[in-house]
Amino acid sequence: MSQNQDIDKAIRLMAQKAKKAARTLISLSTETKNSLLRQMAAALEENQPFIQQENQKDLVAGQKKGLSAAMLDRLELSDKVMAGMIGGLLEVATLPDPVGEVLGLTKRPNGLMVGRMRVPLGVIGMIYESRPNVTVDAAALCLKAGNAIILRGGSEAIHSNLALAEVLQGVLVARGLDPAAIQVVPITDRAAVTVLLAQEEFIDLIIPRGGEGLIRSVCELSRIPVLKHYKGVCHIFVDKSGDLEQATPIIMNSKTQRPGVCNALEGLLIHREIAAGYLPIIAKELGQAGVELRGCLESVALVPSITPAQASDWGTEFLDLILCVKVVGSLDEAMTYMAEYGSQHTEVIITEDYSHAQRFLAEVDASTVMVNASTRFNDGGQLGLGAEIGISTTKLHAYGPMGLEELTAKKFIVYGAGQVRS
Amino acid sequence: MSQNQDIDKAIRLMAQKAKKAARTLISLSTETKNSLLRQMAAALEENQPFIQQENQKDLVAGQKKGLSAAMLDRLELSDKVMAGMIGGLLEVATLPDPVGEVLGLTKRPNGLMVGRMRVPLGVIGMIYESRPNVTVDAAALCLKAGNAIILRGGSEAIHSNLALAEVLQGVLVARGLDPAAIQVVPITDRAAVTVLLAQEEFIDLIIPRGGEGLIRSVCELSRIPVLKHYKGVCHIFVDKSGDLEQATPIIMNSKTQRPGVCNALEGLLIHREIAAGYLPIIAKELGQAGVELRGCLESVALVPSITPAQASDWGTEFLDLILCVKVVGSLDEAMTYMAEYGSQHTEVIITEDYSHAQRFLAEVDASTVMVNASTRFNDGGQLGLGAEIGISTTKLHAYGPMGLEELTAKKFIVYGAGQVRS
Repeated sequence: MSQNQDIDKAIRLMAQKAKKAARTLISLSTETKNSLLRQMAAALEENQPFIQQENQKDLVAGQKKGLSAAMLDRLELSDKVMAGMIGGLLEVATLPDPVGEVLGLTKRPNGLMVGRMRVPLGVIGMIYESRPNVTVDAAALCLKAGNAIILRGGSEAIHSNLALAEVLQGVLVARGLDPAAIQVVPITDRAAVTVLLAQEEFIDLIIPRGGEGLIRSVCELSRIPVLKHYKGVCHIFVDKSGDLEQATPIIMNSKTQRPGVCNALEGLLIHREIAAGYLPIIAKELGQAGVELRGCLESVALVPSITPAQASDWGTEFLDLILCVKVVGSLDEAMTYMAEYGSQHTEVIITEDYSHAQRFLAEVDASTVMVNASTRFNDGGQLGLGAEIGISTTKLHAYGPMGLEELTAKKFIVYGAGQVRS
Repeated sequence: MSQNQDIDKAIRLMAQKAKKAARTLISLSTETKNSLLRQMAAALEENQPFIQQENQKDLVAGQKKGLSAAMLDRLELSDKVMAGMIGGLLEVATLPDPVGEVLGLTKRPNGLMVGRMRVPLGVIGMIYESRPNVTVDAAALCLKAGNAIILRGGSEAIHSNLALAEVLQGVLVARGLDPAAIQVVPITDRAAVTVLLAQEEFIDLIIPRGGEGLIRSVCELSRIPVLKHYKGVCHIFVDKSGDLEQATPIIMNSKTQRPGVCNALEGLLIHREIAAGYLPIIAKELGQAGVELRGCLESVALVPSITPAQASDWGTEFLDLILCVKVVGSLDEAMTYMAEYGSQHTEVIITEDYSHAQRFLAEVDASTVMVNASTRFNDGGQLGLGAEIGISTTKLHAYGPMGLEELTAKKFIVYGAGQVRS
């Protein structure tokens, strides 16, 4: 048998086992799931030396391979990162369990009681890059929502991920549960991903997390539904009625608090009627924070320190201290610009005009649309989901941050009393 | 330019236009949409002679091609079918508009008001077989939910579909709206479907309706999310505590009211403790209705008129007066059988045992799970959705019949007051 056939067989078997394990998770009580999560937290704490020792192997190999300092940093399971994972498990144990919730149970004219019950999705496949803490965070959320998970992290984190899975599986086994509910793919060969993405018979959903390249290649290959966002090209439009005392801290927070993340600001639109007064002020603040501005000719005329933008700058996700600036004539022009250059991630208006606020919220097509707040709030924790497993900028199933509810489906349930259809 | 390049270009242009039209639909008021639907109903009535004349072309061509009587029947836009389409438009006008509904608006500790607003999905692609009335039904639901639609019906209905679209588009144009909101693909070449399914840049969702072959080929080819059900292998389990006076009409209704549809009964499971008493009774009733029974050896021993089932019978969607019968020893055995042979469509238990009813509803993985009611109730209208555009047996986005809500997404909206993230 060739190596590829071995990979085929191994991945298919993992997927089959995951589906079987998923069936046993449907009927676990909330109490059982919560106590499992707490036990997993204790097990991580207890096995911290083992986990960090395995993590050390990855770090040494990474150094030999010449990984950047930033990558090595993401790879490291420091005491702080371990504490974060442990805290995450305990937090997920406190979140409400979505499974079994019945929505809108109503009575039909023929007496049938019809409602929708939240049920687990089944098996989730998670494909991600270097951070091994995703292994634990994602497994916790999937377990709480009653799903089995197959985790495929970066090859550079393989020892860490396998060690983490071993500890989590140990808890499942000790409680008489199927360890296949949480599996890490032990094969670092890229062919394993291709095979995994073809297991539509067993896997219900794929969530990729990482750079745009990873996500695009997962979407190309997958025969299974994928929830993803490619990138975050987020904008703020400062309307002519905007409260500029609010605008400045919101823009600064959106752009500079953490410029390398998907909910950071990449484009600033300013209404023409206030541009001459406000643009020099905000440009100065941004400049002092080290932000390079690239703008339209009108903005350059107002603020000479702004570099004229190239066509390729508009709609770019810089993930850096660079910001596009454009002067626009109206709310409609701002919304048209967002529709053209945005990535349906996060769009913000700064306005005191009631009708503009309402129109912006209703008409802008993005996963999160906000009035008078920082783009940085587009995050599961910040928006009240408790924790997030990812973010979706496609509209099917989930749009925006995905929490526990987004890891469930709603089936119809019917309480009858002998009804037949006439 | 080759013919294929022409098709590529034409379909891509349609998809682009649909996306542009979709943006204009987002902000249509409910009143505007309802009056459009009523005007469309009037226009169909007014243009009935033209539509039926175009339909006649399809019928003549179909006869020449040797289509079966059943297919010609589905193809015909008789006065009755026309009245059904017109009534459907008027009915959709009365349904609540999901767009703009805000769910769960709550206040975060920092004062942000966070909720979710229903918004249109964007552009829906509908791929279906012979019935031209689907053209109008689907267009009406998509318009009401603020979506543009591209319709690709069967080649044998092309004149009918184009005539219907012409009438509906006439109403859009008369009201100053973009006719690209409702488009019928004028190309009958199969290559058009392949190209359509690759327009992920412009189309948000594909809904195929038709036989399993059509649906499988759409799923194979599509780069766009697909909502579908392959088939309906629906079961009823008569528990030992089941009320047999309810069981008999439910079984008869499920199997014989319309055996050729996806929510018809295909498998009957009977608890061992009541099999000897009940199986002869129900077998007799079914036999008198012309239903052929294929059963396990235990059932054959109880009722000699039952034919021993072949392995291939279990899990088959007969769509005919044929029914599989199996004696089982417990609720768990019945649920395991459904998990193995069902199609996640509709599963029913007949029971008076409270705990069994609750376990069945919670644990059986199907789009609709019912107690003491006919499988035939798995239908958007019957379950209270008003109308349905299809049914989904995959769990992402929708599970079960899909109505107007399933043609929307929920984005996050945030009312802020200057908040920034700390």
